[in-house]
Amino acid sequence: MASNTVGRRGPARRSWLGGVRDAFDVLVKSSPSRFAILVFAALILITTMLLSLPIARAGEGRGTPLYDALFTAVSTICVTGLTTVDMATHWSPFGNGIIFLGMNVGGMGVLTLASILGLVVSRRLGLRARLMAASDTNPSRVHAGPVSERQAVRLGEVGGLLATVAISTLSIEAVIMLGMIPSVLAKGYDFGTSVWYSAYYAVSAFTNTGFNPNPLGPVEFFDDYWFQSLMMLAVFLGSLGFPVIFALLRTWKSPRRWGVHVKLTLTTTIVLWIAGAVTFLVLEYNNPKTYGGLSFVKTFYEAFFMSTMTRSGGFSTIDMADLYGSSLLVTDMLMFVGGGSASTAGGIKVTTLAVLFLAAYAEARGAPAMEAFGRRIPRDILRLAVSVVLWGATIVAVSTVIITQITKSALDFVLFDVISAFATCGLSTGLTESLPPEGKYVMAATMFMGRVGTVTLAAALAAAQKRQLFRRPEERPIVG
Amino acid sequence: MASNTVGRRGPARRSWLGGVRDAFDVLVKSSPSRFAILVFAALILITTMLLSLPIARAGEGRGTPLYDALFTAVSTICVTGLTTVDMATHWSPFGNGIIFLGMNVGGMGVLTLASILGLVVSRRLGLRARLMAASDTNPSRVHAGPVSERQAVRLGEVGGLLATVAISTLSIEAVIMLGMIPSVLAKGYDFGTSVWYSAYYAVSAFTNTGFNPNPLGPVEFFDDYWFQSLMMLAVFLGSLGFPVIFALLRTWKSPRRWGVHVKLTLTTTIVLWIAGAVTFLVLEYNNPKTYGGLSFVKTFYEAFFMSTMTRSGGFSTIDMADLYGSSLLVTDMLMFVGGGSASTAGGIKVTTLAVLFLAAYAEARGAPAMEAFGRRIPRDILRLAVSVVLWGATIVAVSTVIITQITKSALDFVLFDVISAFATCGLSTGLTESLPPEGKYVMAATMFMGRVGTVTLAAALAAAQKRQLFRRPEERPIVG
Ligand SMILES: [K+]
Ligand SMILES: [K+]
Repeated sequence: MASNTVGRRGPARRSWLGGVRDAFDVLVKSSPSRFAILVFAALILITTMLLSLPIARAGEGRGTPLYDALFTAVSTICVTGLTTVDMATHWSPFGNGIIFLGMNVGGMGVLTLASILGLVVSRRLGLRARLMAASDTNPSRVHAGPVSERQAVRLGEVGGLLATVAISTLSIEAVIMLGMIPSVLAKGYDFGTSVWYSAYYAVSAFTNTGFNPNPLGPVEFFDDYWFQSLMMLAVFLGSLGFPVIFALLRTWKSPRRWGVHVKLTLTTTIVLWIAGAVTFLVLEYNNPKTYGGLSFVKTFYEAFFMSTMTRSGGFSTIDMADLYGSSLLVTDMLMFVGGGSASTAGGIKVTTLAVLFLAAYAEARGAPAMEAFGRRIPRDILRLAVSVVLWGATIVAVSTVIITQITKSALDFVLFDVISAFATCGLSTGLTESLPPEGKYVMAATMFMGRVGTVTLAAALAAAQKRQLFRRPEERPIVG
Repeated sequence: MASNTVGRRGPARRSWLGGVRDAFDVLVKSSPSRFAILVFAALILITTMLLSLPIARAGEGRGTPLYDALFTAVSTICVTGLTTVDMATHWSPFGNGIIFLGMNVGGMGVLTLASILGLVVSRRLGLRARLMAASDTNPSRVHAGPVSERQAVRLGEVGGLLATVAISTLSIEAVIMLGMIPSVLAKGYDFGTSVWYSAYYAVSAFTNTGFNPNPLGPVEFFDDYWFQSLMMLAVFLGSLGFPVIFALLRTWKSPRRWGVHVKLTLTTTIVLWIAGAVTFLVLEYNNPKTYGGLSFVKTFYEAFFMSTMTRSGGFSTIDMADLYGSSLLVTDMLMFVGGGSASTAGGIKVTTLAVLFLAAYAEARGAPAMEAFGRRIPRDILRLAVSVVLWGATIVAVSTVIITQITKSALDFVLFDVISAFATCGLSTGLTESLPPEGKYVMAATMFMGRVGTVTLAAALAAAQKRQLFRRPEERPIVG
């Protein structure tokens, strides 16, 4: 009793800062998902406030209206890249600085949070996996070890994680930036502008944001294979996710040692990349507004560029509104899938799609377990994947119905922009810019739920483990 | 050795008919799904042939072109209800007779095949469930019994099943027809025409086909609540599926004794029915082309009529092309879900959707098992549900991309007609009629795969059980 009283008095004697830190600790430990949502909401509020200031806007006059400031803030922090104002001309150097910083904070924030959440999940699951491993006498099992712990070790501890992510991000961005400078100089810009454009493009590409600093956007570099390839590389790397990037850096010489997550992410990404490019090539090769007038090699290259950007880079060298409806729909599907888990890319994630197909394949074969690369995938992963897809489909459906009802626009364009917002891709048919304020708020909510929701939902669901006190009798409904 | 030789000689001495019957038996027993596909394909070929004949077409002149005859045959046998010709004027009495018969054969065929396939599946699963039950000491489990066997018993044996389905179908259709005759007479038609129209509408509604015998279609009865209510009742009953109809007939006084399949089907159907109606009411109440000029009561009623028909009835009292894009999209979603398992309705089925949501709900609660109405749903059902949804989404996606690329039409209309075809709903924006021949073939394939594919896929997958000879080491990818 006595020690209890002392214990209770302890915090009261400490500073309010200590109290805040304690509350912070409790929040992070008790609900890391809620913590992530709060952090993102706070970042968005601060950015909105700063972007609303008159000094953030180019030229004299009043500041940016709330809906545009909020939209740009959400689009920046969620690294979506959709715009309702001309990013190259609307903002002052101060505004551009905020956005440049915001992309990096947003991009690294997502990476860090996803990794931390992944770590929390891995740890809890690690305990469970260890218990399961103990009851399993299969020697190949013991040899390989339960991999959720391997992943946990790979991700490192929370403290070092942020530093690792920040250093890796900045290093990759710096290399890309240096590679881009000659291309920008070649377009006749002065050195300062070239450095600024290159830095902006490098950050915008690696964080999979998709904002352009120059008025013409990537179209200005349409004849520059080197520049476009650097963009593709940065977007591709960013969309893989840090668990995969680290695995590649550490064990690139021995692909056999890669975990199932790395193999699944790489395989699905490459399959989608090639399938997407081939589809664009077939559907658009004779569209006079897009690839119709280009040489075969250029069409081939631009189809791969386009396919890369649907992961969630969001840069484009052609006008999305000029695509045939069929290509728009294919882009919708590719964007909805998005990139890798714990990456700056959005969407339901490539591994989620892979797990659904593995489940269907196992079902078709009548196999009791999903398998990939000689590993059994735990069954509960399927339930998690279904939850993520349902969440995504519900957001996209509700948002599309609301935007269609508000604007009475064609479904081709509404679905495209809504999925682009949900999957934080940033490609646009031009519809988003022309939305009335209430439509911009709906799109901002879609971006937020697509970015923060999907990452935290997966982690929150995976972490929630509950003992069942009794077993109900089993009964089988008929499906299909 | 000697008896073996006699055995081999035995069949050779029998008639070729006996040989066919043997081959037939082997096919049914070894692969009931493949048998179902063959039966449907054969029915469609015969109907196509008959409809191509010049005597099937009204007026003099040549017969119907192959693409229209095939399309109508697929639409009839698959009880889809999409049309590329005017059903009320294009066909001669002979042609109409073929279609009338085809709807009944198609509707009952689906019911019977689905039930037989369900029986086969239930039996195999029944064995497994029995084995599982033996190893389960939970008293409540033993009390309730493994329900797949209860369902198997309820469905009856294969022999009696066809008779039961046929008698039930014809009885329900006869009652609906008798109820409709006064309404048709009231429109000034003579007695013979009234009986024909009533019979056609009763069959078309209960089998969830959606063809109209009169040139104006259901719009002619727009002021007749009695007639429209009978249509809704017939479509609703047909879309529940026979396992549910039989359960309702036998135990309608004691809903507590209904199985989880019955409860899940009824609950999901009613939730979708009300949610759909309320959504149409909200989205369309001020659309001048649809409900804008109607009284509130009439709007309310017609919203429920419309919602009922998305299950897969396919009748409409308003022009689908006049709906707002938002309502078209909501209709798309409702049609994709469709009706009950082992029913004349199409789509992925309401229980499939319910299982996905139960999985997400269990995941959110961190519960180890899906539960509904005090019963545990077996885990492998989720994998089956995911397979059915993936199959449906893939067909719809591929078909939509192809039709969009062929016609360059708006996605609103293409997606609507493709989902209507896949889910054998039959509502149309008018796009299907105007398709070029190659588009009609694509739509016919979509109807076939939507109808036959979904029913047999679910059964084939559920029936495929394979022993796993060894367990691979487990490894967990990150999803979401
Ligand atoms: K983006
Ligand atoms: K129908």
